[in-house]
Amino acid sequence: MKISRRSGIHAFEVMTIQQKVATMQAAGQEVLLLSVGEPCQGAPRPVRERLARVATDGTDLGYTPGFGIAPLRAAIARHYADWYGLDVDPARVCVTVGSSGAFLLAFLACFDVGDRVAVGRPTYPAYANDLRALGCEVVELDCGPAERFQPTPELLAAAHAEAPLAGVVLASPANPTGTMLDAGQMAALAAWCREHDVRLISDEIYHGISFTGSRGECAWTYDPSAVVVSSFSKYWSMTGWRLGWMLLPEDLVDPVDRLTGNLFLCAPTPAQWAAVEAFTPEAYAAADRAVADFAAAREVLLEADLGWGTVAPPDGAFYVYADISPVLGRYAGSREWCAALLEDQQIAVTPGLDFDAVHGDRTVRLSLSAGAAAVAEAVRRIRTFQAGLS
Amino acid sequence: MKISRRSGIHAFEVMTIQQKVATMQAAGQEVLLLSVGEPCQGAPRPVRERLARVATDGTDLGYTPGFGIAPLRAAIARHYADWYGLDVDPARVCVTVGSSGAFLLAFLACFDVGDRVAVGRPTYPAYANDLRALGCEVVELDCGPAERFQPTPELLAAAHAEAPLAGVVLASPANPTGTMLDAGQMAALAAWCREHDVRLISDEIYHGISFTGSRGECAWTYDPSAVVVSSFSKYWSMTGWRLGWMLLPEDLVDPVDRLTGNLFLCAPTPAQWAAVEAFTPEAYAAADRAVADFAAAREVLLEADLGWGTVAPPDGAFYVYADISPVLGRYAGSREWCAALLEDQQIAVTPGLDFDAVHGDRTVRLSLSAGAAAVAEAVRRIRTFQAGLS
Repeated sequence: MKISRRSGIHAFEVMTIQQKVATMQAAGQEVLLLSVGEPCQGAPRPVRERLARVATDGTDLGYTPGFGIAPLRAAIARHYADWYGLDVDPARVCVTVGSSGAFLLAFLACFDVGDRVAVGRPTYPAYANDLRALGCEVVELDCGPAERFQPTPELLAAAHAEAPLAGVVLASPANPTGTMLDAGQMAALAAWCREHDVRLISDEIYHGISFTGSRGECAWTYDPSAVVVSSFSKYWSMTGWRLGWMLLPEDLVDPVDRLTGNLFLCAPTPAQWAAVEAFTPEAYAAADRAVADFAAAREVLLEADLGWGTVAPPDGAFYVYADISPVLGRYAGSREWCAALLEDQQIAVTPGLDFDAVHGDRTVRLSLSAGAAAVAEAVRRIRTFQAGLS
Repeated sequence: MKISRRSGIHAFEVMTIQQKVATMQAAGQEVLLLSVGEPCQGAPRPVRERLARVATDGTDLGYTPGFGIAPLRAAIARHYADWYGLDVDPARVCVTVGSSGAFLLAFLACFDVGDRVAVGRPTYPAYANDLRALGCEVVELDCGPAERFQPTPELLAAAHAEAPLAGVVLASPANPTGTMLDAGQMAALAAWCREHDVRLISDEIYHGISFTGSRGECAWTYDPSAVVVSSFSKYWSMTGWRLGWMLLPEDLVDPVDRLTGNLFLCAPTPAQWAAVEAFTPEAYAAADRAVADFAAAREVLLEADLGWGTVAPPDGAFYVYADISPVLGRYAGSREWCAALLEDQQIAVTPGLDFDAVHGDRTVRLSLSAGAAAVAEAVRRIRTFQAGLS
């Protein structure tokens, strides 16, 4: 019986790694997980306690409005005033099933089958995979060290000249590189998009996890026609709660309302009520303690001098993206190198092929989300592994 | 800036009603809600208590495997043994973000842009709206009282003869009509699909809510290449929890795995742990008490003799779908009639146009999910309203 062609999108390499890890763990081996982008400290206490309360206190846990409960939308709007000085109308806040749900809705609301949408390369693979599954043409912009692994107006202009783009996805801090767009870069990209009628979709899910003094530039500061996507998953360590949000320009409110009413109905109701507590001082403080631990882990790794090539400057998020060609030794590429590292030293890291099918055979992504102590132990084991290669 | 053509899908009429209701409620009016398919008793106690526990007992609430946590998948598999005598491998169970998430994944895994997929008419509107948003061609099968509002092999054959179908969505018990396919009908439809290489997607979210002695026929009893979709929302009254599942034929396991890893990552983790308790005797008993209340509400409505035309035989689910042409009075159609009923008597019911753009102007859907007492009061008010029309 027929299976769709579009379901032939790539799986994550990281999932192959995770399956191997599960087998090793089942056999009693302890594995250091630097592969997944999953903070380990869990949701802030006020959030978890609110979840416990709404579970049994008679709170209506039925469907909510498609855009979410009013108190959560108001709290998200206030967060933009607090962090960015932006005046956001709660009517433009759409609470979603994680940022995953937000991207799906944004892509469907903005793009039709055949539309060309640009993404950077390296990139979080789901942007391209989702777009392809929805029938869009993905235009990969080759972003190297010279561009700090971020798209530029020049790269966009070149792609747009080949055939018009309908949109572009930006991410800052980025996954897998951790690089950030500064105010000037974000302003220039936003201006280029506005001028060329190209929809800017800004992935801001790592905002607040940064080491540069800036929490990240919000695209709405520069372009109110952009779609801003964010999430409770990373800064607040709520990955499994499947709760994110979008800020929508006026013209997309009705289209997204129709789409979410059909495709999702609403985001998880218990999580919506609990997440209101994410905007309390105690919850922000808990999130900031986690960020401090990521910063310590980053220092450990950057100071380790492992003999690697160019490392993307990890301004934010909790990843380090590195060129391992100088230390590949007998291995053909990063996939084989990562498999051997896992086998020999029980450390899981992700080969760059997940993020860059062209150059990713020479790169790896390490997640700092396990914290400084785990990363220090990982560095020790990587040294042992690399010593065995020379 | 561009907005996609595909976001021009229909909104639910019921959402327009709900907005009017919200305005009336804000003005202090009490409205009887017979419009939404939302059971009011809430999740069973063991489920809510488990949610409260996992919120604070240190359970890992991070990402789960894309197909869900093992204990929940095992419990769902056991449920198929208990209810249907089916031997389901937990590896074929995919836990989803509600049945909404299941339909999205199933449609993407089975169908490409341009593929023809059949649905009954009247129908739950999201099937068609989702399919259109994903680029598929929707073929509506006109199912009237003669077919008990359900597709037949003859209707499928006629559509398939015009141009080949790639799939069909069946629903039993159906929304909005409540009609059910018996064993013979399901077997005949499944055989026709297998013979013609047409993928059967079986919506079974209302199973367990029925008044015929059968909980509903599971498509897997007749066709292991079918996709079975179900949910915790209706029988267990967990609408806002956004948790459902699919049974997948072997050939769709990998495609859905790739799609869910990109589009969703996983279903909500706190809800997954809590839902394990839905399969306890206490939770089944709570669900069955709700079904008894729907049955009482159904009796009240069917015995009310409101002078309506053909009423679809509500074998299951919690809806009554009725032809109101004999009582339209001065109103042009069901949309106007429903608006007047809401204004005059503060009862919200849904005009049939949501479910049938061709004949729905003469029909309404009443939800029984508010229970027998509410429906008895609604009948009294509808009589008053109709008396004012003659």
